[in-house]
Amino acid sequence: MDLKIFDRMESQVRGYIRSFPVIFKQAKGSVLIDENNKEYIDFFSGAGTLNYGHNNPLLKQKLIEYLESDGVVHGLDMATTAKKYFLETFERVLLKPRNWRYSLQFTGPTGTNAVEAALKLARQVKGRANVVSFTHGFHGVSAGSLAATANAKFRGAAGFPLANTTFMPYDGYMGPDVNTMAYFERMLEDPSSGLDKPAAVIVETVQGEGGVNVAGRNWLKELERLCRRHDMLLIVDDIQVGCGRTGNFFSFDALGIRPDIITLSKSLSGFGLPMSLVLMKPELDIWKPGAHSGTFRGNNLAFVTAAQALDSYWTDDGFAAAIQRKERLVRDWLENIVHSYPQAGLSVRGRGLIQGLVLPTGGDAANRIARAAFEEGVVIETSGAQDEVLKVLPALTIEDDRLMRGLEIIERSLGRVLARTDASARVLKMGGKSR
Amino acid sequence: MDLKIFDRMESQVRGYIRSFPVIFKQAKGSVLIDENNKEYIDFFSGAGTLNYGHNNPLLKQKLIEYLESDGVVHGLDMATTAKKYFLETFERVLLKPRNWRYSLQFTGPTGTNAVEAALKLARQVKGRANVVSFTHGFHGVSAGSLAATANAKFRGAAGFPLANTTFMPYDGYMGPDVNTMAYFERMLEDPSSGLDKPAAVIVETVQGEGGVNVAGRNWLKELERLCRRHDMLLIVDDIQVGCGRTGNFFSFDALGIRPDIITLSKSLSGFGLPMSLVLMKPELDIWKPGAHSGTFRGNNLAFVTAAQALDSYWTDDGFAAAIQRKERLVRDWLENIVHSYPQAGLSVRGRGLIQGLVLPTGGDAANRIARAAFEEGVVIETSGAQDEVLKVLPALTIEDDRLMRGLEIIERSLGRVLARTDASARVLKMGGKSR
Amino acid sequence: MDLKIFDRMESQVRGYIRSFPVIFKQAKGSVLIDENNKEYIDFFSGAGTLNYGHNNPLLKQKLIEYLESDGVVHGLDMATTAKKYFLETFERVLLKPRNWRYSLQFTGPTGTNAVEAALKLARQVKGRANVVSFTHGFHGVSAGSLAATANAKFRGAAGFPLANTTFMPYDGYMGPDVNTMAYFERMLEDPSSGLDKPAAVIVETVQGEGGVNVAGRNWLKELERLCRRHDMLLIVDDIQVGCGRTGNFFSFDALGIRPDIITLSKSLSGFGLPMSLVLMKPELDIWKPGAHSGTFRGNNLAFVTAAQALDSYWTDDGFAAAIQRKERLVRDWLENIVHSYPQAGLSVRGRGLIQGLVLPTGGDAANRIARAAFEEGVVIETSGAQDEVLKVLPALTIEDDRLMRGLEIIERSLGRVLARTDASARVLKMGGKSR
Amino acid sequence: MDLKIFDRMESQVRGYIRSFPVIFKQAKGSVLIDENNKEYIDFFSGAGTLNYGHNNPLLKQKLIEYLESDGVVHGLDMATTAKKYFLETFERVLLKPRNWRYSLQFTGPTGTNAVEAALKLARQVKGRANVVSFTHGFHGVSAGSLAATANAKFRGAAGFPLANTTFMPYDGYMGPDVNTMAYFERMLEDPSSGLDKPAAVIVETVQGEGGVNVAGRNWLKELERLCRRHDMLLIVDDIQVGCGRTGNFFSFDALGIRPDIITLSKSLSGFGLPMSLVLMKPELDIWKPGAHSGTFRGNNLAFVTAAQALDSYWTDDGFAAAIQRKERLVRDWLENIVHSYPQAGLSVRGRGLIQGLVLPTGGDAANRIARAAFEEGVVIETSGAQDEVLKVLPALTIEDDRLMRGLEIIERSLGRVLARTDASARVLKMGGKSR
Repeated sequence: MDLKIFDRMESQVRGYIRSFPVIFKQAKGSVLIDENNKEYIDFFSGAGTLNYGHNNPLLKQKLIEYLESDGVVHGLDMATTAKKYFLETFERVLLKPRNWRYSLQFTGPTGTNAVEAALKLARQVKGRANVVSFTHGFHGVSAGSLAATANAKFRGAAGFPLANTTFMPYDGYMGPDVNTMAYFERMLEDPSSGLDKPAAVIVETVQGEGGVNVAGRNWLKELERLCRRHDMLLIVDDIQVGCGRTGNFFSFDALGIRPDIITLSKSLSGFGLPMSLVLMKPELDIWKPGAHSGTFRGNNLAFVTAAQALDSYWTDDGFAAAIQRKERLVRDWLENIVHSYPQAGLSVRGRGLIQGLVLPTGGDAANRIARAAFEEGVVIETSGAQDEVLKVLPALTIEDDRLMRGLEIIERSLGRVLARTDASARVLKMGGKSR
Repeated sequence: MDLKIFDRMESQVRGYIRSFPVIFKQAKGSVLIDENNKEYIDFFSGAGTLNYGHNNPLLKQKLIEYLESDGVVHGLDMATTAKKYFLETFERVLLKPRNWRYSLQFTGPTGTNAVEAALKLARQVKGRANVVSFTHGFHGVSAGSLAATANAKFRGAAGFPLANTTFMPYDGYMGPDVNTMAYFERMLEDPSSGLDKPAAVIVETVQGEGGVNVAGRNWLKELERLCRRHDMLLIVDDIQVGCGRTGNFFSFDALGIRPDIITLSKSLSGFGLPMSLVLMKPELDIWKPGAHSGTFRGNNLAFVTAAQALDSYWTDDGFAAAIQRKERLVRDWLENIVHSYPQAGLSVRGRGLIQGLVLPTGGDAANRIARAAFEEGVVIETSGAQDEVLKVLPALTIEDDRLMRGLEIIERSLGRVLARTDASARVLKMGGKSR
Repeated sequence: MDLKIFDRMESQVRGYIRSFPVIFKQAKGSVLIDENNKEYIDFFSGAGTLNYGHNNPLLKQKLIEYLESDGVVHGLDMATTAKKYFLETFERVLLKPRNWRYSLQFTGPTGTNAVEAALKLARQVKGRANVVSFTHGFHGVSAGSLAATANAKFRGAAGFPLANTTFMPYDGYMGPDVNTMAYFERMLEDPSSGLDKPAAVIVETVQGEGGVNVAGRNWLKELERLCRRHDMLLIVDDIQVGCGRTGNFFSFDALGIRPDIITLSKSLSGFGLPMSLVLMKPELDIWKPGAHSGTFRGNNLAFVTAAQALDSYWTDDGFAAAIQRKERLVRDWLENIVHSYPQAGLSVRGRGLIQGLVLPTGGDAANRIARAAFEEGVVIETSGAQDEVLKVLPALTIEDDRLMRGLEIIERSLGRVLARTDASARVLKMGGKSR
Repeated sequence: MDLKIFDRMESQVRGYIRSFPVIFKQAKGSVLIDENNKEYIDFFSGAGTLNYGHNNPLLKQKLIEYLESDGVVHGLDMATTAKKYFLETFERVLLKPRNWRYSLQFTGPTGTNAVEAALKLARQVKGRANVVSFTHGFHGVSAGSLAATANAKFRGAAGFPLANTTFMPYDGYMGPDVNTMAYFERMLEDPSSGLDKPAAVIVETVQGEGGVNVAGRNWLKELERLCRRHDMLLIVDDIQVGCGRTGNFFSFDALGIRPDIITLSKSLSGFGLPMSLVLMKPELDIWKPGAHSGTFRGNNLAFVTAAQALDSYWTDDGFAAAIQRKERLVRDWLENIVHSYPQAGLSVRGRGLIQGLVLPTGGDAANRIARAAFEEGVVIETSGAQDEVLKVLPALTIEDDRLMRGLEIIERSLGRVLARTDASARVLKMGGKSR
């Protein structure tokens, strides 16, 4: 495979092509196939965009039918048959059973567009500029979302100082014994803390990019309570861990909180098509017509597949149960690995089918394991501030045997990397002695 | 057609559905069909996204073939066969013939994502925060682009003060006799003007949203010269008027300027699929790997149709010649209208197949004409700060007879609206007299 | 005189000591005396702080009496006898005769503290962040005022991008034939100009630091009209050219405008003591108690001299008449110089006893003249973006003969500098020829 | 005493006049005298400006002599005899004995001007916009300093969102058991904390306005270590607690840290005259000439008294010893009070002659005690986010018997207020029972 044209023509900003330096030509379910016909098990899922697998046949069929019938492909926010059906389905499958009412805003089609709209709305509603985000949070890289994204790599690219956002420590940030919410509460209640009263708090229930950090149920409920008491809107950014990733459609379904605003994207279309959505409590919908626009805010192909995904997977509890069953498989496997390498300082964290195997920082172990796994046919990425977390993110629809095979490869890769590290450690130690 | 579900479920922010209150079910070429099977001639083209018409059969065929072969749909910025082919085609069809070298950055798939990346890059390259944008400029609504967007409706929604952008008067802003570039030059050369030295200037050669304002060739060349002399990058935002809209692929092809950075989106995919692109001179490509990301920065379906659009329309001069021929048709027709209503204070402006019929402000004439035309089966929008411009934006591929039919309807609608206005004016005048 | 300790201990930021490299030990009226007992005529007046001369005996006597009686020197904003008397005098001498009502805010004691307070108040009153300032405007160097100061030298020192201020062209900025107010008006009336609706406009009627630029009466009246029509507050920064500098106490007394907010400092105390004041129309006084503080907001020594200065100079029209008479002396002299050097491209501008002799930029002529004059015993500074203006700023109380002597020295210095320039020009030309 | 003119003419922003509603006419040492000849013991000292008492005779004599000799009063940053002597004295008395080298920048004459300069310099030196300040920190109210001031009352008056500052928890902020420095360290070391790398940290060793919070020696040393390790400048704002307030000239003299930049003001002139100073390590002095200006940056009267204060009080250890002795007197008395009211939940904190008696929040006890004390002839203020701290701030030169008398009055006032509170508590309880 000749990657030269990418080197020659594509900007230095390119990333994943460096981790997975092959050319993929096909993809189906949980399998990626490169131009040499080598197959890879996909434990990456487009960073959470392919919860239903690649080229999911149920969705693909609908999509092709729609194209063949000359359905409207692009329509900004004009009404279309496809959009109407999506609205009906969303209401029927998701809102009605939960007795929820939310207004839907279709923003530009990628996650950051939804976050930008959510933050704008919150600031307008409350008439305040500041919002609170959390350490290790990731919400996008356009300037408004970027201000709420914690990672210095992204922030540094802005070219000007980011403002109007205050970072608070996420659950567990100061170790398991420190209740970080107490700090936030102290800052809120103290009129001389320097914290400008926030319009809203934006939070991920599991931080996908930030290292598979899981917020506890109590912490989130306490956060919601603080929001209510201090007149702040609660925005849950469910872009990466919504759409079933943690076992239910919304990541907070089982957590007893009810956000004021929700952002969705990534797996929302179900087929890897760009689509984003902001849900807001109807009483917050103070938008003026056309005050937030976007050329691709009505991606009708995505409406078609998104509605079909809801119809196919979320009309009863079967899919959720299957995810939860697979969660146990993955979790058991990973915890087994942890126990198999007691000296390695490993740990596991996650919810549903986003699970992180945490490696000691320094030494770049997680990246080396990911590279080794890739050679053996598994696509997997790392996350966390120092890439210290191996992020297991299979499609929710992955077959059990393929899931097992992927986990085996990861375990083997990890074994090899740790052995090598161990060996070099021994060599280093011996070298140290011989001096 | 029952629009109730849109009223019930969609946010107040929705816009075009209010102007065109029907449900569209199909679209083909320059025709939109609603659920009552009424046909509309499309003079709107998805605000410049559908330069090759709806469901262009050449592109659609490729798209369905790709889907049927299980080509990769979503791949972030991993290498795929579809992406490789797009790169090759882009180089072969667009860059080589012009002897240009640009690095390509695939950003999030909507225009604002490209603008955000372009502005970040420029600020990083120059180490300066300020950029210059122009009165009536539109570059998107995410916070970074929004700061460079002039319209108060959009700016006011931000919820905090926008910064790091200075607005300069666009060509013609102070009337035909004032060279606005002299003002910009004075501000640049005076160390006590209050203008913080800009990293870059971002400009549209024709302002689509801003009211079909056309920058003159000399003004643009003078702007480029100022950029060179004052060490500012020249960014041309070709999102709305690139991809053939003004008669050549790039809107500045015939204008003798060579931007440092170019943003493309809208009609880039050719099929209405979300896709955006930043072109930067290779020496400016100081991006660090992964420093600007985005879930949908590799929309492979869009790569397939985009490459096909280039192959089908831009390998020789035929298409450009056809556009220029149609430009004359439209232009003549509109100027004829202007001459037919000498008292109405009309004028025409535009380049290529973006032409604006400017109506006197106040009285909302342009909007009333657009509404009348819609009733008669033409979809057309208004633009400009006071919606005073009727924006004629047909597909570049529109058949001549359909084009003529659309223009006839517009002329008829205009005639009716002006007559009514005239009548009311007479009534008012008589009323005035009778007192 | 040994300046070594200044070199060793004082920061590089020091400025005037470089222009006037002697150590002054005494000062009286319009005379400065250095440690070698050399006398200098003061045409600088502490940049407008010493309108009544150095150590004005009327004020000095009151000051010493106050000190000897153990009057309160420092009292924050507690009530004191000295403050009460200042308030009474201010009301009696300045407000009552004009039939004006203003509330007085004593801010920190230097000009920038008053400007900061004025801008804060305006933004609070209107609930908008943006303010308009003008090219070449100078309002101070603390971050809030600095944002409204045009000079790049000062702005660049901030260390972060300044925001919330838009610069408009001052009267005459584009030459005598362009009405710059038309540009401001166009930006205000156009909802898509990019100008965020300002809370206020801050303006100097004569720009002292910016190069003795004089705003015309019509321009200022037009500005006031725009403020009223567009709901912006009009702030006149009278710090440098108030307190009699232009012939009446307030610089706008004869101009037919009535600001919403006025800032005063510099010569307000009359004795060179730090003191600042914000006047606001009473209905704008929405300050919360203590919401703007400052250790030295009640400089009681300054209250003593300030009240005495009002009593001594402003209870009748005599002082104003004397200033206006001296204005003619200076103006005639300077215009005479202009006519004496017809090839030199000189011009004069100013109002009252702030008069600028404008020299061609490049060649640093104004600075060389100032240096030459200093050697001959006149202290005078330059201003303007390129130091191209020799700024004649004598005490308002200067004796006629001393004024004449100072002007003679300046004329002589100018003659010598121009002769030298001419000579070098000739040499250069001959050199050019000989090649 | 008739305060009507203050009500009529002074802005609502006035503060202390509301707490102390009399007109003071004279002041000497630690005594204030109102227009009814009532005397007050001053436990307020101009919020730290009058460390050497009112009208200190040593300084007053020098000041009057200087005035009588027509010494230069106002000279911007020209060299004067008075300034030279101040520089020499500062070097001889303060720098040489400590073996320190600092460059001196004379800024505008009030504290906030010094803070603005210090922050600008730090940002320029490091090329970074962000600085860290602390909860309850107070650094001034001009926009640059205000961003680093924690109190919402002041911040809210800005009229736009403050930026480029991150607040960290001060020592003790989360209670005595939490080491807040660990949080700051975690944020610094984590590249995904959201903390933009700071140019500098600005800190008060004792927070005067913030409630007499005392930073521990270890905490400060740890802070200094973090600054060194993470390439941040350490700025100590010694405006309120420098100049001897805590027992040595600099508040950190006994704490083993060495700041990169120090700000001084308030008691620097020794006589209540406006004067401010920035000390910077010479290698940081990258200021360009004139890049930070200010009309009153050379207050020569203040130079005279400041030099005399150094000569009179700081040439040997006697004054420091006296302060430390008085600290014990005050401290013992206050701790005695705490023990006398075991149910009242009182506590004491402070260093040197800034001591706070902390009362339970709610009920406004501290303010009521201050009011009662004022009636009995003591001027004392409260501080802290909820005014919960009675701030004992006598002149360092106060006579022992007057100090004791003041403390007696405070104790008596406190006794009365607590008795009343107790009584009402009993009444309330009884009321409760009777229902």
